[in-house]
Amino acid sequence: MTTPVLQQQPTPEHFFNAINAYELTEAIKTAVEMEIFTAIAEGKTTAAMIAKRCEAVERGVRILCDFLTIHGFMSKEGAHYALAPDSALFLNRHSPAYAGTATEFLLTPRIRECHAQLTEAVRRGGTALGEGALEPENPDWVKFANAMMPLMCRTSETMAAELQKGGEAHKVLDVAASHGMFGISVAKQNPAAHIYASDWRNVLEVAQKNARAMGLADRYHILPGSAFETDFGSGYDLVLITNFLHCFDPPTCTTFMRKVHAALNPGGRVAIAEFVPSPDRVSPPTAAAFSLMMLAATPCGDAYTFAELENISKDAGFARVELAVPEIGINRLVVAYR
Amino acid sequence: MTTPVLQQQPTPEHFFNAINAYELTEAIKTAVEMEIFTAIAEGKTTAAMIAKRCEAVERGVRILCDFLTIHGFMSKEGAHYALAPDSALFLNRHSPAYAGTATEFLLTPRIRECHAQLTEAVRRGGTALGEGALEPENPDWVKFANAMMPLMCRTSETMAAELQKGGEAHKVLDVAASHGMFGISVAKQNPAAHIYASDWRNVLEVAQKNARAMGLADRYHILPGSAFETDFGSGYDLVLITNFLHCFDPPTCTTFMRKVHAALNPGGRVAIAEFVPSPDRVSPPTAAAFSLMMLAATPCGDAYTFAELENISKDAGFARVELAVPEIGINRLVVAYR
Repeated sequence: MTTPVLQQQPTPEHFFNAINAYELTEAIKTAVEMEIFTAIAEGKTTAAMIAKRCEAVERGVRILCDFLTIHGFMSKEGAHYALAPDSALFLNRHSPAYAGTATEFLLTPRIRECHAQLTEAVRRGGTALGEGALEPENPDWVKFANAMMPLMCRTSETMAAELQKGGEAHKVLDVAASHGMFGISVAKQNPAAHIYASDWRNVLEVAQKNARAMGLADRYHILPGSAFETDFGSGYDLVLITNFLHCFDPPTCTTFMRKVHAALNPGGRVAIAEFVPSPDRVSPPTAAAFSLMMLAATPCGDAYTFAELENISKDAGFARVELAVPEIGINRLVVAYR
Repeated sequence: MTTPVLQQQPTPEHFFNAINAYELTEAIKTAVEMEIFTAIAEGKTTAAMIAKRCEAVERGVRILCDFLTIHGFMSKEGAHYALAPDSALFLNRHSPAYAGTATEFLLTPRIRECHAQLTEAVRRGGTALGEGALEPENPDWVKFANAMMPLMCRTSETMAAELQKGGEAHKVLDVAASHGMFGISVAKQNPAAHIYASDWRNVLEVAQKNARAMGLADRYHILPGSAFETDFGSGYDLVLITNFLHCFDPPTCTTFMRKVHAALNPGGRVAIAEFVPSPDRVSPPTAAAFSLMMLAATPCGDAYTFAELENISKDAGFARVELAVPEIGINRLVVAYR
């Protein structure tokens, strides 16, 4: 994320760097693919050592590592590179929190293509690529589930811990469950909870596999099909809606929240994990910038402010809506109470 | 350019944003193409007004302008956008310093493709696309000359003023003249100077057109062909080598500087405009990052440190080499004395 720079003298430098911003995308993709971060974690700290480990030429590795140092992924002391703390945690393949797989979804050809047609998206106010990824059983969501799971592991644990403070849930609906980690984290922290996961059937295979691996098979149930059409049943204490509402326009969100409201017990809660920009829509940077991803990739999705999520929830019948204080990874947590 | 961020809690946010860095490239390309900055300069300050002027939907414009605000190209006050000073100068089509055309060269398919094959470039230590743009009369350099001229106008004036302090030059060689602005700026500030421009014949047509437009036709001479093979003649007081050496490896640079040395009068100077990283090669960010562009796009080019440029010049016979203090746009100025 570029930080706005205040300059004394006018210079085209900021413009020049913005045009070339895609170089960082390619550099991080290449570094993950070549296991550059993993090599450094293994103690290969010079360009020559990394080059040998990663089957490359020293000059190529030196230039790539310098570039990643400029962008804060490493530090450099003499000829030695060291991983920044985030890189050590998320980009070293030996780390349990390794999230390098995220590039495999975030840089799929469809998402790149959406942005290549950004002018058309701005002109029409929505993606230039039609309904695309929102169609039934789209295999991109299986890829998403596999690729994004590591990135969401810590996030889902943080969220489950935060929700636990509000009381134990026994019957939990996990909407657009994907990799299943949000529901699974709740079940891990709360042995009484049964999880009902809603998503396309092909995607739920990933969630079920993950639930089984955590020893939760007997408390993990699936509701395959469109979240808008599937019968959720009733009697839920808690519904998880994580990074789902941003794909739709506010009336569609309200309709969906009404359906969720009907499935909840009195006093039940909905936990919404989302990119939540401030009312100015230009801060904080990551949450606010997510709006462009939705413009490029969806017909009418957006990153919603807390006030917008509150309105959507109240229009759907919820009594009270709160923004939880701690950040949930790169998301915020909004809780709506029936 | 992303500024390294020091974080207390580990978060995948920096990684997530780096993967998505290409969105800024697409956003700036779209905004230039749609004349969003020009619309704001004309007083269309809300998304609705800009949308009308730029033939787009308000929602699309709002999201794009918010994104550009996050990245420092605008500011936002309520629903009103205002241009940052650099944007007003360089991105408003009505500004004499308008440089939006730079996207037309910097984002040509070949340069994008070089970076799409960055892994291969790192593995082999040079571009995955062969000699490419260095072949004779490549039309990309005509595109470069036309597209980059506005970006280099102020830079060339600053450089000419700095060189003027060192004395008046009568016979000036402009190597890889491109749009011709570096030589033209010297001729404008010094009515005694004759400029000899070296570049491919198709590119020199652009330089000649610009020289004629400035009323300099009778003092503007051309030397078409490869800079390595063309006979420059002799008796020069000043040679301009602007953003050229970075395309080649140090031995090739030395060979070339030897040729230039032979063409200079005793006491003559070479003015080298370049991206000059510090000895650590990771600062300042824009100059240091340019190295990756050379890795991706050339067989063995690089951004050279001052010490490297000094060595190249001294090996070629130059007596003294100096780094001029002021920045020359996004470049630095290195002067080598015969």
